[in-house]
Amino acid sequence: MLSIVIIGAGNVATHVYKALKKAEDTSVIQWYNRNIKAIESYKNEVSLTKNIDDLKQADLYIIAVSDDVIGTLSSQLPFTDKLVVHTSGSVSLHDLDKKNRRGVFYPLQSFTKNADIDFTEVPICIEIENKKDLQVLKNLSEGLGCKHYRVNSDQRAALHLAAVFVNNFVNQLYRVGHEVTESKSVDFNILKPLIKETARKIETLSPYMAQTGPAKRGDKKTIKKHLRTLDKEIHKDIYELLTKSIKLTHGKKL
Amino acid sequence: MLSIVIIGAGNVATHVYKALKKAEDTSVIQWYNRNIKAIESYKNEVSLTKNIDDLKQADLYIIAVSDDVIGTLSSQLPFTDKLVVHTSGSVSLHDLDKKNRRGVFYPLQSFTKNADIDFTEVPICIEIENKKDLQVLKNLSEGLGCKHYRVNSDQRAALHLAAVFVNNFVNQLYRVGHEVTESKSVDFNILKPLIKETARKIETLSPYMAQTGPAKRGDKKTIKKHLRTLDKEIHKDIYELLTKSIKLTHGKKL
Repeated sequence: MLSIVIIGAGNVATHVYKALKKAEDTSVIQWYNRNIKAIESYKNEVSLTKNIDDLKQADLYIIAVSDDVIGTLSSQLPFTDKLVVHTSGSVSLHDLDKKNRRGVFYPLQSFTKNADIDFTEVPICIEIENKKDLQVLKNLSEGLGCKHYRVNSDQRAALHLAAVFVNNFVNQLYRVGHEVTESKSVDFNILKPLIKETARKIETLSPYMAQTGPAKRGDKKTIKKHLRTLDKEIHKDIYELLTKSIKLTHGKKL
Repeated sequence: MLSIVIIGAGNVATHVYKALKKAEDTSVIQWYNRNIKAIESYKNEVSLTKNIDDLKQADLYIIAVSDDVIGTLSSQLPFTDKLVVHTSGSVSLHDLDKKNRRGVFYPLQSFTKNADIDFTEVPICIEIENKKDLQVLKNLSEGLGCKHYRVNSDQRAALHLAAVFVNNFVNQLYRVGHEVTESKSVDFNILKPLIKETARKIETLSPYMAQTGPAKRGDKKTIKKHLRTLDKEIHKDIYELLTKSIKLTHGKKL
């Protein structure tokens, strides 16, 4: 049985806690947060603390706090030579204080407050300082029912960056679609099957193969018409830049 | 029983033909294409022709050809006062020759050759010149198991434009994600659960509410790090522009 202490109370911490409660061969023995109110509703199921000096002995400490306080918090831990991981996509493993055995346990998914997630659909990217600790994080991923991938720091940084494109930026394009339909009083819901299909397609096709549309075809007439229809400058800019990007990818003349 | 002639042999024509074959209360009585080889494999199930003067009498003619030949083709039809629709998102209803009763039957979905599609997931946008023809197109949509929406020309143009953002441009962001991960030899598949979840989220949340990430948070440190990591100029440009767009949407200082 792997004993675990969770540190932090944000979206990731809460989702990880809930998933660990259901996982096999693991036991969350304590949950720390500086502001205990954020986790108070869990007081009947797990031991809580707001004092970092009261942290219990455990096999693994999971730090799931804001990127900019991971380093400081790891220095405040009142013990040494324990396995300590953070869950961030962009913070270096070396930001963790070296008095403990360091690792990264990065769940690459978009967590929303109050929205449950199927944790078996969350890939875990593992980075580790001491090889002997690898098996602990592998077992933990398997206990959660997750696929796990061992990555190095550069690879994790690339995944975190790519995630911004395929998640935040994609979502912003949904937002532009929403604004464009709303401006003509059309129901945005009409676009939802297309949005779903666009994501579904790349389960079997590469994004390169899945591309269609006026930019890919080099259909100048439609591109011009679209640019004329757009009201907002920023929407025109996005249209032009992504059209240029598609043309570059598919070898059309600019 | 509604008798239908299909004109054209591209992706949309083929998908519409296949869906109509399975639909209730409709019968495809003929399929026209200038180059008959493209549809030859269907010769045992439907009457084929490459001569426009041989078109049979039908209740409805569906023109599913390239945008730029819809007008010409509609003028060549050897009859008048019949119900003739095209399936394009961007061509005006008035591009159809006015010798017939005109309409648009626009299936808003991304069709890929050789990839079957669940047609009940395809919203149909209907535009019609004579009110009395509306019921025919409504019945047809229902026979196909599709949701249908009556739209005007401006609204159809807005949908077609928004579709470029949420389909072609979103797919290009998947492509950028693919390039970013490949540049560090990471498996692009690790991002697929996130891609799926990003699309799934907006089934219940507006894109505005679903937004997360460094641009939304105004996390300058991460944004700088990401821009430094990107090798290609065009990727930097996309990153900067979509970050700006998210900040504008969410009222952050630029």
